[in-house]
Amino acid sequence: MPAPLVTLLTDFGTVDGYVGAMKGVILSLAPAATIVDLSHELAPQDVVGGAWALREAAPYFPAGTIHVAVVDPGVGTARRPLLLRAAGRCFLGPDNGLLSLAARRDGSGGCEGYVLDVRERHHHPVSSTFHGRDVFASVAGHLAAGISPEACGTRVTGWLELASPRAEQRPDGSFAGCVLHVDRFGNLVTNLEAAQLEGQRGLSVRVAGRELGPLRSTFADVAPGEWLAYLGSSGRLEIAVREGSAAAAGRIGPGAAVEVRR
Amino acid sequence: MPAPLVTLLTDFGTVDGYVGAMKGVILSLAPAATIVDLSHELAPQDVVGGAWALREAAPYFPAGTIHVAVVDPGVGTARRPLLLRAAGRCFLGPDNGLLSLAARRDGSGGCEGYVLDVRERHHHPVSSTFHGRDVFASVAGHLAAGISPEACGTRVTGWLELASPRAEQRPDGSFAGCVLHVDRFGNLVTNLEAAQLEGQRGLSVRVAGRELGPLRSTFADVAPGEWLAYLGSSGRLEIAVREGSAAAAGRIGPGAAVEVRR
Amino acid sequence: MPAPLVTLLTDFGTVDGYVGAMKGVILSLAPAATIVDLSHELAPQDVVGGAWALREAAPYFPAGTIHVAVVDPGVGTARRPLLLRAAGRCFLGPDNGLLSLAARRDGSGGCEGYVLDVRERHHHPVSSTFHGRDVFASVAGHLAAGISPEACGTRVTGWLELASPRAEQRPDGSFAGCVLHVDRFGNLVTNLEAAQLEGQRGLSVRVAGRELGPLRSTFADVAPGEWLAYLGSSGRLEIAVREGSAAAAGRIGPGAAVEVRR
Repeated sequence: MPAPLVTLLTDFGTVDGYVGAMKGVILSLAPAATIVDLSHELAPQDVVGGAWALREAAPYFPAGTIHVAVVDPGVGTARRPLLLRAAGRCFLGPDNGLLSLAARRDGSGGCEGYVLDVRERHHHPVSSTFHGRDVFASVAGHLAAGISPEACGTRVTGWLELASPRAEQRPDGSFAGCVLHVDRFGNLVTNLEAAQLEGQRGLSVRVAGRELGPLRSTFADVAPGEWLAYLGSSGRLEIAVREGSAAAAGRIGPGAAVEVRR
Repeated sequence: MPAPLVTLLTDFGTVDGYVGAMKGVILSLAPAATIVDLSHELAPQDVVGGAWALREAAPYFPAGTIHVAVVDPGVGTARRPLLLRAAGRCFLGPDNGLLSLAARRDGSGGCEGYVLDVRERHHHPVSSTFHGRDVFASVAGHLAAGISPEACGTRVTGWLELASPRAEQRPDGSFAGCVLHVDRFGNLVTNLEAAQLEGQRGLSVRVAGRELGPLRSTFADVAPGEWLAYLGSSGRLEIAVREGSAAAAGRIGPGAAVEVRR
Repeated sequence: MPAPLVTLLTDFGTVDGYVGAMKGVILSLAPAATIVDLSHELAPQDVVGGAWALREAAPYFPAGTIHVAVVDPGVGTARRPLLLRAAGRCFLGPDNGLLSLAARRDGSGGCEGYVLDVRERHHHPVSSTFHGRDVFASVAGHLAAGISPEACGTRVTGWLELASPRAEQRPDGSFAGCVLHVDRFGNLVTNLEAAQLEGQRGLSVRVAGRELGPLRSTFADVAPGEWLAYLGSSGRLEIAVREGSAAAAGRIGPGAAVEVRR
């Protein structure tokens, strides 16, 4: 049997000992676990960015993986510590929407939620400001050691979902969408899905008053420094400047309108 | 038997191949070892920051863990390469105080020191500027492969200890402490220990001329943007701005005076 | 048998889910693999920096290690996805020179090249902009699961090699070299090799109009803030400012001339 996989996604950075403490808690409970860092460099308290990163990475992991995500501005408040089980995976984190995009993407066959209220699965004393270590890492360690979600919490049927607006098709056949995320390269990831656009001919893309012309296959279809729109690795329309940053060149961020016309 | 655990904490960053070379040396000697990154993003040559990060993370790892820490401005000088064994853990690093806070925290039952002078345990040729690879990673690999500390060095009874001043209680019952560390979120970690303050009523906290009022339980006890003092996950008094940075808002860094009055 | 080792070196950062997706693809195909991060913080599209980091780290890993490196400004163009096998190691990445320094360093006994054109080893659908996930991680997972390079691609005999100019010796016996790389500490790594300089007496080093005097053994041979030249852990002449940054202090970067006179 392969080692249980636990992935970590936080906004803790690694300058402090916080991430290390989480890893220690997990490996103390489940010495055979394999821990995989997804990211610790999310912008502090960027729940939406974390939700997107988790959504992009999680589907590529094998069934049985335990995904821990902690971007938790509400730690110590009434926000609930949550476990979502979807498609054979477990997602652990605060009930603030952080898990929702990944669990929904995986959860076409349904998604079960649990509030992590079984105190025996926590690391004591539980700090009111560091549930990453004392609640989420601790429960992940128990799960990796073979404990079931049912033995870690109580079933719930509702939890916070992040809005992830789908691009609208207008009566004239054009699409009105927006930028969802800017990646490290300054590429713009939009909410226009490949499935909406594929196979349509003569499309023309527009962002922030700039005409980008037709969909391209890849960066090499334009000269260095030029803009292009293409169906990206995320399965959505993306906008980039070849060998440059579209976000910087156009001063464009999340929320900017994107239009696709025929 | 679980895989031997080796943790790494350095100021090397990961832009260069330095950390990778250390991992290669360890895994060449102990292919079954599990390597866990604590941090490689410590500020260059920040021995004190490294000592605190190691102190925060190490106690959460299981007994038998091998902790390698390299922040080593004196590499190539007469400073000794050190191994400290405390509470069943091994700490490896330069004798410049870096290991002392973690080993002391763990070492209520005593701490044994060794100078790593057994040349057969080093990776040759030993560079005069990269003991992280040629001394510390190499010895860690041998330890992970089952070699004893005694076979890696010579017992010593003295080593450098970082000062970690305890907050003083004044005759009037108030406490005079200071900021020890600023974390990634701009929260201020102080040297006032929870054990000194717990159970006392009517405490009032003051930092840099600012009255913070009583101890709070958690961030949600104040409005966003407001200051608070609380007993943090480090087991010490911490000071924060909810959803902000206390360090930036108050221009406060390590050494700043903190006062707790009744 | 120890777990197959897969190392990762990219310019993806970890703010996005890209690196996580690569890890998921590898572990889905080879659940027993051990993944080791070399770096994800290379400057975007810095092929030369990546080639040097890989060259520095790879030789320290055991034979059988699979090294994946992705700095890939030409993704989606005609540039070929490459596997180089040298000294029992496999190097996977784009055919843009990124692998060449590491493979050549290891490959005194020869180096075999393969173009990764066996579509069954790719992750489908293959994105035209993310071969890191769909080609390189996927092939690495198959290799880690025991598939041979021959079953992943077609032998080729030519690939791009990065120039790595050797320092010249002039008729008067002096050497004319240059700075190749600036590391995180601002130390300057040059192309003057230790083997060229070792055992020679009375050498004097000059960079950017600055006389550095003779070769030193280590940082402690000069006062803090002073410049020194020494044979570094890379096996080459390096130039540093003790407890400072030579790159910043002298405004010196890759390409700067370095002269060693007798």
